[in-house]
This record gives sequence, structure tokens and C-alpha cells, in this order.
Amino acid sequence: MATTKGMNELLIDFMRDIYYAERQILRALPKMAKAAQSEKLKQALLHHREETQGQVERLQKAFEAMGQRARGQTCEAINGIIEEGDEVVEEFEQGPVRDAGIVANAQAVEHYEMARYGTIVAWARGAGQKEVAELMEATLEEEKHADRLLNELAGKEINQKAIKQAA
Amino acid sequence: MATTKGMNELLIDFMRDIYYAERQILRALPKMAKAAQSEKLKQALLHHREETQGQVERLQKAFEAMGQRARGQTCEAINGIIEEGDEVVEEFEQGPVRDAGIVANAQAVEHYEMARYGTIVAWARGAGQKEVAELMEATLEEEKHADRLLNELAGKEINQKAIKQAA
Repeated sequence: MATTKGMNELLIDFMRDIYYAERQILRALPKMAKAAQSEKLKQALLHHREETQGQVERLQKAFEAMGQRARGQTCEAINGIIEEGDEVVEEFEQGPVRDAGIVANAQAVEHYEMARYGTIVAWARGAGQKEVAELMEATLEEEKHADRLLNELAGKEINQKAIKQAA
Repeated sequence: MATTKGMNELLIDFMRDIYYAERQILRALPKMAKAAQSEKLKQALLHHREETQGQVERLQKAFEAMGQRARGQTCEAINGIIEEGDEVVEEFEQGPVRDAGIVANAQAVEHYEMARYGTIVAWARGAGQKEVAELMEATLEEEKHADRLLNELAGKEINQKAIKQAA
């Protein structure tokens, strides 16, 4: 049912969506690290897991700043992205090609997060929610940085190995 | 079951994923345009639908260049992103706040596509699939451009109206 909910409700909805997403990502990253072969990729994923823990805490602070209890609501987008990651692991054996797929799926996760945090920062800033905007901007920068690191790792190492591997 | 599939199979898998996604987006965009209130937003979504039609055709050419019949495979990520868009339309009545949510969800779609096409371009280029790389790069640039247009529309008009609307 459509109601006359306002911008605050929309912002809180999106925060709940990404809060759920971050906690799913927290669970997915160690599995992705385990499925990877490249040591550098394993380390990058585990390092991002630590960052993700900090991002969950920033979201908790942002909920507090909005006078809300931190809670998630099912995010079908992240569930779908993670499910696609699982499929690559099922369909490709451990090695360079699977690693290329894991990087690609980690980047799809990062892109989803960049879209969501970009929106949340713009809305919070527009609505004068300065603390929320600053917290979420710090996370947005981490996500962009994580995506760049994955890009470099793919370009310098993972993709060449995958392409060289005999099909 | 893990098998010794190679990079070509991974590339084709990702092309099938985004081929399915583009066709779901073709269906979703007119519904999003209908749900929007802002005329500029409606036009932007319908213009992007035309671009999407061209992107489907580029994918068909790319499949042909790989000696493959163009076919999609279910992409749970795009299904999830579109489902989240439907939820915003259900939960917020037509007006500025819903428009802000529609822009945000269109940007989530664009970000997913940017991640996927970015990967496909890198893999195709690495594997010497020049035609595939060029076709997919043209689409990648369109997706980035569409995302920038949505950002501008949000920044200049949509978000202010949404924030001004009484909650």
C-alpha cells in the first residue's frame, strides 16, 4: 500500500537494506577467500572483511544519529549477487579461472555498495543529516578503494593467469 | 560439479548473465517511467530503454563473434535489484520521494551493469577477443553516461523536491 511516507523513511529503508547487505557480505567474504587460489586474492578478501566489520559499526552509529535502532531488512539484490558468486565457485574448480570469477563477483558487490552509499550520502547531506553523511561517506570511500584494489589485482595478476590456463 | 572449464566458458557465462539482465531491464524501465512523477525522469528512463535495446543487439553481435548463439541465463542479481525497485514503488506513493527512490534503483541497475561490462571488457581484451571487447566497451560507456545523467538529475532536481516534501 502506498502511503505518504517521506524522505526520512526512504533513507532509513535504504540504510536497513545496506545493513542487511553488509552482514551477508561479512559471511560471504571468508567463503570467497577459502574458494580462491591466489594468496593475494585471499588476503584482499579477508582484509575487506575487516573493513566491512567497521562499516557495520558505522551504520550502527548512523542509525543512532537518526534515533533508530539498527536493523536490517532483506536485500534481494545482495542475495542475488552472492548467489551468482556461489554458482561460479560450484561451476569452476579451484584455480586461476575461478579466481577471475571471484574478483568479478567481489566487484559486483562493491558496485552495489557504491550505488547504495552514494545515494545515502546524497540524501543525508540534502536532509542536513551531517553525521550520517560523514559516516557513510567514509564507507563509500573504502568501497571505492576496495574496488580499485580488486581492479589492480585482476589487471596485474589474476586475469593473465586465467587466460593462460588451458581451457 | 567443478569441471576444468576455462576462461572462454567464464566469459560466455557472464555474457549470458548480462544478456538476461538487459532483457529484464528492457521490461522494467517502462514500468519505472510510468511510476515516476517527474517528466524529466520519465524521459531519462525511456531514453535509456532505447539505449538498452541497442545494448541487447551489441550482445547478440558479441555472441556471434564468439561463435555462440545469443542466450540468457537467469541473473538473480538483476532480479533482486528490480524487485527492490518494485518495493519502493509499492511503499511510496507517486511523487518526489518515490522519484528519489526510482533514481536510486536505476543507479543500482547501472552500477551492476558497469561492474559486469567492466569485467567482460577486461577479459575479452585479455583473451584477444577484439570485437567483443569493442562492442562491450561501447555499452560500458553508455552505462557510465546513463549513471552520470541520473546523478545530475538527482542533484539538480529530484532530491531537493523529495527533501522539501513534508514527511
